[in-house]
Amino acid sequence: MVKIYDTTLREGAQGRNISFTLQDKINITLKLDEFGVHYIEGGWPSSNPKDLEYFKRIRDYALRNSVVTAFGSTKHKGNSIHSDPSLNAIIDAEVEVATLVCPASKFHAEKVLKIDAQTHADMVYDSITYLKAHGIDVIFDAEHFYLGYKLDREYALGILKVAREGRAMAIVLCDTNGGSLPQEVYDATKCVTSNIRGEVGVHCHNDGGLAVANTVFAVIAGASQVQGTINGFGERCGNADLCQVIPTLELKLGIRTISRGDMYKLRHLTRLSRYVYELANIPANPYQPYVGEYAFAHKAGIHVDALSKTVEAYEHVDPALVGNVRSITVSELSGRTSIVMKANELGIEVGEDEPRISNALKEVKDLECKGYQLENANATLTLILLKHLGKFEKFFEVQSWKTVTEGKDQEVVAESSVKVKVNGETMYEIAEGLGPVHAQDLALRKSLVKYYPEVKKVSLTNYKVSVIDTGFGTASTVRVYVEFSDGKGSWATVGVSTNILEASKNALIDGYLYFLHKAKGIIR
Amino acid sequence: MVKIYDTTLREGAQGRNISFTLQDKINITLKLDEFGVHYIEGGWPSSNPKDLEYFKRIRDYALRNSVVTAFGSTKHKGNSIHSDPSLNAIIDAEVEVATLVCPASKFHAEKVLKIDAQTHADMVYDSITYLKAHGIDVIFDAEHFYLGYKLDREYALGILKVAREGRAMAIVLCDTNGGSLPQEVYDATKCVTSNIRGEVGVHCHNDGGLAVANTVFAVIAGASQVQGTINGFGERCGNADLCQVIPTLELKLGIRTISRGDMYKLRHLTRLSRYVYELANIPANPYQPYVGEYAFAHKAGIHVDALSKTVEAYEHVDPALVGNVRSITVSELSGRTSIVMKANELGIEVGEDEPRISNALKEVKDLECKGYQLENANATLTLILLKHLGKFEKFFEVQSWKTVTEGKDQEVVAESSVKVKVNGETMYEIAEGLGPVHAQDLALRKSLVKYYPEVKKVSLTNYKVSVIDTGFGTASTVRVYVEFSDGKGSWATVGVSTNILEASKNALIDGYLYFLHKAKGIIR
Repeated sequence: MVKIYDTTLREGAQGRNISFTLQDKINITLKLDEFGVHYIEGGWPSSNPKDLEYFKRIRDYALRNSVVTAFGSTKHKGNSIHSDPSLNAIIDAEVEVATLVCPASKFHAEKVLKIDAQTHADMVYDSITYLKAHGIDVIFDAEHFYLGYKLDREYALGILKVAREGRAMAIVLCDTNGGSLPQEVYDATKCVTSNIRGEVGVHCHNDGGLAVANTVFAVIAGASQVQGTINGFGERCGNADLCQVIPTLELKLGIRTISRGDMYKLRHLTRLSRYVYELANIPANPYQPYVGEYAFAHKAGIHVDALSKTVEAYEHVDPALVGNVRSITVSELSGRTSIVMKANELGIEVGEDEPRISNALKEVKDLECKGYQLENANATLTLILLKHLGKFEKFFEVQSWKTVTEGKDQEVVAESSVKVKVNGETMYEIAEGLGPVHAQDLALRKSLVKYYPEVKKVSLTNYKVSVIDTGFGTASTVRVYVEFSDGKGSWATVGVSTNILEASKNALIDGYLYFLHKAKGIIR
Repeated sequence: MVKIYDTTLREGAQGRNISFTLQDKINITLKLDEFGVHYIEGGWPSSNPKDLEYFKRIRDYALRNSVVTAFGSTKHKGNSIHSDPSLNAIIDAEVEVATLVCPASKFHAEKVLKIDAQTHADMVYDSITYLKAHGIDVIFDAEHFYLGYKLDREYALGILKVAREGRAMAIVLCDTNGGSLPQEVYDATKCVTSNIRGEVGVHCHNDGGLAVANTVFAVIAGASQVQGTINGFGERCGNADLCQVIPTLELKLGIRTISRGDMYKLRHLTRLSRYVYELANIPANPYQPYVGEYAFAHKAGIHVDALSKTVEAYEHVDPALVGNVRSITVSELSGRTSIVMKANELGIEVGEDEPRISNALKEVKDLECKGYQLENANATLTLILLKHLGKFEKFFEVQSWKTVTEGKDQEVVAESSVKVKVNGETMYEIAEGLGPVHAQDLALRKSLVKYYPEVKKVSLTNYKVSVIDTGFGTASTVRVYVEFSDGKGSWATVGVSTNILEASKNALIDGYLYFLHKAKGIIR
């Protein structure tokens, strides 16, 4: 078995663009515990007050599978052991296990820490034994070990031996600058596991794009603890992605990690990955191995029938094992089924053979041919179905619209007018905006609000433009994608035209129509 | 030496969300040629008319380093060799080298192709010799080889031998489902290179997060051709990322690829990566090894002074070697140098310490802060420098402009007027277009043509819109990127605004101004 040590909350949070609130950290801890990692590195108590608070708060939760650890460096060379703030913050965090980091490299000792070998050894030994005297088990992160091993093997191994003499419960070999090659990691790890007793772990960075491979090679060489982060979050190019390391060990090498033999646990992997993206507020990488949205997306050319018979011919693992799904581009057959499923979701009963299903499917395909991407524009797709199923309600109709953008004397003004028929009454409104699309939205809202005051709750949360055929310069066709929210749910629409304002207007209209169908209880 | 075979334009374009226009494909071909890859797989001529057109168009360009190849499958079992559309489309493409794909796996032959061993062997042999009889050299992509080797070694090797007997110029081992482990790839590749003479290549997918490692292990086992894509674009989780494979081979294993010994070529890697992202219109992955924006981003905690002394302690390679930059925030000096280099390129002599250099640098930084990406918008950058260096000529000045877009009775009309001062004369013109930006361009041209008839030669070849801050819905800031051509050269501009039409107008103006500076001999 290999133990999984997750450092998403500490080193993952050091990644660029990534930050977690205290509540996020607690939520992720609970998910990681449920998933079954062995250790959760909760934070670096001496580095910021949020982390200190985290350790106080997390004590209130009874974790079932995981041990929460606190991270810190070995004592600073200028401090006496008792007065070292980093070590004392760990003691204050009241954890059972702490992880202490110190370079295991002569070069770093001399050039960065500027200490001699004896001071270095004392620093490691004293820090570990100090925490142990306070009842805390210590995992020793041997920073820059692989580089140190390359530069001065005996020195690097010497530091590990000191840590073992101090009775560190595990010694973790770090590829801190992320530049090692798998064969180098294998050789150095093998040397350690052959010469030093007890648990050895590995901690890799992805600067060479090899963090997963390096981690796997360390395990093959005898490492029995793996450090990494969910989605590979971490400094620079990130840490070893546990979403890739765990299934590789479990499914390809037959090594138990979080499953402890119960393979069902692995099925939470995709959900865990998406959850952590969501809380980090960065878009999920759709191309991510195992857990990405496109990881099992098969192209149109493959006949669905053939694929279903010989699926193992095209997939390296069964997506269900990691909680992901196969996505096959819509074919005539699967298309009908998906249309029916969509209708059922909306609360409408309909049979697969009905002509209105074929008609809806035909329109969907025609639109996709023109550049619509309905897959990600659920609200536009829903409105198309409602029209074909006779459930569409004309809450309003835009009869004409106009936008004027004018630039003069360094100033740019955008205004939009819209004539809308609502409940037999014609509304004619005009608004100014930061740009023409913003003005369109404001004018449309103004027209709708008399009869539908609930549209005030709707806000626009995302707006994207793609050019579909860029071969014709400014005469290109564009696709506009708009996302909406009413505070409770969110939905997205798409519009396509050679005129960006026409495409935007259509996507805006769809967004409000969808919202009204929902608000009036026509769809779920 | 290891040869680099780029399939960004074929397999990369099969990646989800990735599509290239014909003009994009030509532009990328030229960049790849300049960078120095050995082969550029331009497309799959039998799969779509765009690719067929590409092969016609690309013949007009004299490439210096690369050979353009066409991709296709071996003949279909139902076709006679002379009537096979895939093979004949390759012949029509008039390439010197073609790549033919066929499974080298008994399982796939029996279950997917449903053919016996003899038919399989004939299919491979006949297809290769047919193309060779038409004067085309053939690279044989042994699809599913690593899986086939695992399931039935003799059968898989047998197919390779047939390809060699057919005189394929290279045999490429494919990990088509992307699920192999590096050690497996090493063993199977070693077996091939030990048993089969001639050039052996490798083609890996990233489904297990191991494409780079697998590629490197195949090279260590003797492969001398590497297939991959820029940025790892490709189906599902993508192909081996050449932006990671190339520097790993060059910098860590000392194996020459595109550098052919001139290490300076590698410095174009980061620029190439960003350029391909820009044309694919997907955001660059900032965490990407070697070329990502954060790949050498050091956190604030590290003292800059300490870092500069012991930089090798924290970086696995020097970022300059791959054309990337260390970001502790750009140093004043490196910025100045690049401004001076740019001025020299334009034919203007200037010293690094001059205040106008600092001022230009300041403006560049301010604009980049606002969301301009000047790296890929060479023409806009040039105009900024010309202004600071006192070489800018006001060929025309837009005094006011207006666009009106109106939708009524299912019809949408866009028109734009523009008041331009040229040579003391005020031109006031109006034009209709397919959309508001198209109308802007037509009106601007109409105003310029009297004094500058040469603008007739200018055409717009690309237009893209990105939303920079998506958090504010339709009030977002957008970046517009426009590419121009005059038949001899091409240039690109960028405009940024909350108003898409203002951003577009500015990018259009820059495009014509740059052209006129060039046409009048003010810059090279």
